[in-house]
Amino acid sequence: MSNRLEGRRVIVTDATQYSGPAIVELFREEGAEVIAANDDLSVVNAAEDLVRSVGRVDILIANLAVPFEFGPAVDRNDEEMARTMEAIYYPLHRLVRAVLPQMLERKSGKIVVTGSASALRGRSGGVALYAAARGAQLAYMRNVALEVAPHVNINATAQTYVDNPTYFPPEYQQTDDFRSRLAECPAGRLATMRECAQTVLFLAGPESNFFYGQTIPFAGGWTV
Amino acid sequence: MSNRLEGRRVIVTDATQYSGPAIVELFREEGAEVIAANDDLSVVNAAEDLVRSVGRVDILIANLAVPFEFGPAVDRNDEEMARTMEAIYYPLHRLVRAVLPQMLERKSGKIVVTGSASALRGRSGGVALYAAARGAQLAYMRNVALEVAPHVNINATAQTYVDNPTYFPPEYQQTDDFRSRLAECPAGRLATMRECAQTVLFLAGPESNFFYGQTIPFAGGWTV
Amino acid sequence: MSNRLEGRRVIVTDATQYSGPAIVELFREEGAEVIAANDDLSVVNAAEDLVRSVGRVDILIANLAVPFEFGPAVDRNDEEMARTMEAIYYPLHRLVRAVLPQMLERKSGKIVVTGSASALRGRSGGVALYAAARGAQLAYMRNVALEVAPHVNINATAQTYVDNPTYFPPEYQQTDDFRSRLAECPAGRLATMRECAQTVLFLAGPESNFFYGQTIPFAGGWTV
Amino acid sequence: MSNRLEGRRVIVTDATQYSGPAIVELFREEGAEVIAANDDLSVVNAAEDLVRSVGRVDILIANLAVPFEFGPAVDRNDEEMARTMEAIYYPLHRLVRAVLPQMLERKSGKIVVTGSASALRGRSGGVALYAAARGAQLAYMRNVALEVAPHVNINATAQTYVDNPTYFPPEYQQTDDFRSRLAECPAGRLATMRECAQTVLFLAGPESNFFYGQTIPFAGGWTV
Repeated sequence: MSNRLEGRRVIVTDATQYSGPAIVELFREEGAEVIAANDDLSVVNAAEDLVRSVGRVDILIANLAVPFEFGPAVDRNDEEMARTMEAIYYPLHRLVRAVLPQMLERKSGKIVVTGSASALRGRSGGVALYAAARGAQLAYMRNVALEVAPHVNINATAQTYVDNPTYFPPEYQQTDDFRSRLAECPAGRLATMRECAQTVLFLAGPESNFFYGQTIPFAGGWTV
Repeated sequence: MSNRLEGRRVIVTDATQYSGPAIVELFREEGAEVIAANDDLSVVNAAEDLVRSVGRVDILIANLAVPFEFGPAVDRNDEEMARTMEAIYYPLHRLVRAVLPQMLERKSGKIVVTGSASALRGRSGGVALYAAARGAQLAYMRNVALEVAPHVNINATAQTYVDNPTYFPPEYQQTDDFRSRLAECPAGRLATMRECAQTVLFLAGPESNFFYGQTIPFAGGWTV
Repeated sequence: MSNRLEGRRVIVTDATQYSGPAIVELFREEGAEVIAANDDLSVVNAAEDLVRSVGRVDILIANLAVPFEFGPAVDRNDEEMARTMEAIYYPLHRLVRAVLPQMLERKSGKIVVTGSASALRGRSGGVALYAAARGAQLAYMRNVALEVAPHVNINATAQTYVDNPTYFPPEYQQTDDFRSRLAECPAGRLATMRECAQTVLFLAGPESNFFYGQTIPFAGGWTV
Repeated sequence: MSNRLEGRRVIVTDATQYSGPAIVELFREEGAEVIAANDDLSVVNAAEDLVRSVGRVDILIANLAVPFEFGPAVDRNDEEMARTMEAIYYPLHRLVRAVLPQMLERKSGKIVVTGSASALRGRSGGVALYAAARGAQLAYMRNVALEVAPHVNINATAQTYVDNPTYFPPEYQQTDDFRSRLAECPAGRLATMRECAQTVLFLAGPESNFFYGQTIPFAGGWTV
């Protein structure tokens, strides 16, 4: 334990999903005061309410997830399209908008978006709507980051092949589809959520003060 | 004139905006039968209705534009966020979904998304919401492209610094903001819409049959 | 035939290798006066001598190839390392240096590097030394392009899966290694050299006047 | 101090140049046994001799630097071209070749290349030959990394705007050229070498076990 986040107040959203649980645990070990939020952020005002209730926020981990079914884009209806965007991208903008004023006033703050590698590399696995929402996140992040540099650091991960309950549930890991997908990953395995959280920690802590608008893939070499 | 699109039926959406007018003109010169559509595609079913009314579509130019005001992300409200996404990305999915079945049945077809370089490189100019919608387009395109390869070719441009009425109106070209922005462009000038349409033609015509899921920046060297 | 290169004097190097033959043929059909060079450009002064003997050069196609054997980097000796670099990258700098003065004086000219996708995406196929030389080409190209913009346009392709005698000889196409490699290509086939030459034509001709420093992958979707 | 490198034997090459000094210092603080090498690695066999004399190497920091003068590519002679490549890329291959056998045998090891952002983004500053050598490094790294995954982790940084004596000597920092260059950096400042070393530490230590072939820009947002 190195106390890299000693005294920092951190919001982690969707704290029980995606990379949430391991981030909460690791960040607490590193000395952070973590607010593990589980508010439904697709609700208008939920992000604003959350930030207001928390008060000072030094670090925002915009961890946003949504369960979805794989399937060809040609079969996906409007509801699925909107549901994905409203769960993954819209709350990101609302969260960023809610925390930025205090960060800009203090000229200090960090925001990390836990994004997806599906926004960086295509595949035929039926994830186009999901990838679109993740692509929106990264392009948004990149531009906002340059608007608020150098006072606030906004960056992102782009993960895949992480053993989390949202996208790699145990039953999926028994399928042939999973096995052939894993064969495309140079690491040859899923990462633990804790390993993924280490990268989030790097972008949230004091070691990345020179990073602005960057996306760090966490994907076992799959994006290389 | 080389008749590169001889006998091809082409839909160009938002035909009077963004890169639309020059695409319509150039494609007709190249022998295409162009349906220059101006339907408001943010309306549900509008894309489907358009494709049904046209019948056979060999090439879809998904040209989608929306006017917006520059401004820091921290000031942009939910309405602006949703309006941009609903004008730029949602219609793309609806259009693709509407034309793909006939293309897949014929094992032939081309789709070109006229995207934006703002999805590829960040800047501090107050375009984050717009970039997000453009980022959604490109990530979506990349994944759908691999779903339907090799029968259908889906690709995109990523343009900026194109002299079009939607994003570079004459009055904007008189501002200091425009001049300092132009100084960042290696080309040192705006491209004509016709030049941009040449790149769209490359991706729509017979010379790009080996292209799947690619994004070709058209940005005067700005993304390099 | 559209005479896109009418009256243009074009040097194509390594004209019987890599993408050379199809470029020579297509460019002549488009009206160019093509100098199909086969000088050994790893010889010092060979590039300079070639350009001097040709006189006016409107377009340089820096097509540089070298046969090599696949194999793990850990086994590759210094000779192979140097031989690859001296065949692929060193002649590029010499060619560019030789043609640029006249192009800069006329404020007009185009250079296209026929590069490789192996510089853009990694794979475990034993091509690291080759990829290094191709990576040198693209990074060099990108920087020189911005030095001489906007008067001269320097750009590159990044190809793979092209049916050429240098890298996909007929006997290799009968191997299991080839078949498993092809399975990774969304196009599911090799491109013809002529298809590849069409992309080179796009970057050499009048349709890409707004392109500076760009790399266009020609890889059947493999880089997506 | 968190002892992230406790008990690890680390070679840092060109230890007094580029990012070397800060890496040596930080890594020792983290518990590593650092061999700070200053051998001239452009000499054939020097890399092999170094590794042999060290014996067990857990981590190789391939930090390779060479002083050079900025200047247009059109003016750069063959000697400069070869000198840069022989100082930056050739020793990388020799080092990797020398340490890989023991790492592969132990199925464990990490290699970090301290690369340059000049290989990722072009600029008109007269650095094309240098960028080429850095581009060779990254393309080489990416391919070797996939050859030896998952047992050995090979990754790279791509730095610029780091306050080091090799590329940003104090006298250069007084020039107008430096000031206009700094204006293009979102961070608005140079990073300290220690900050840069933190990123190298991330890729050398236990937190990046899922990284293969990746390049992490360390550039104050300049590559975004």
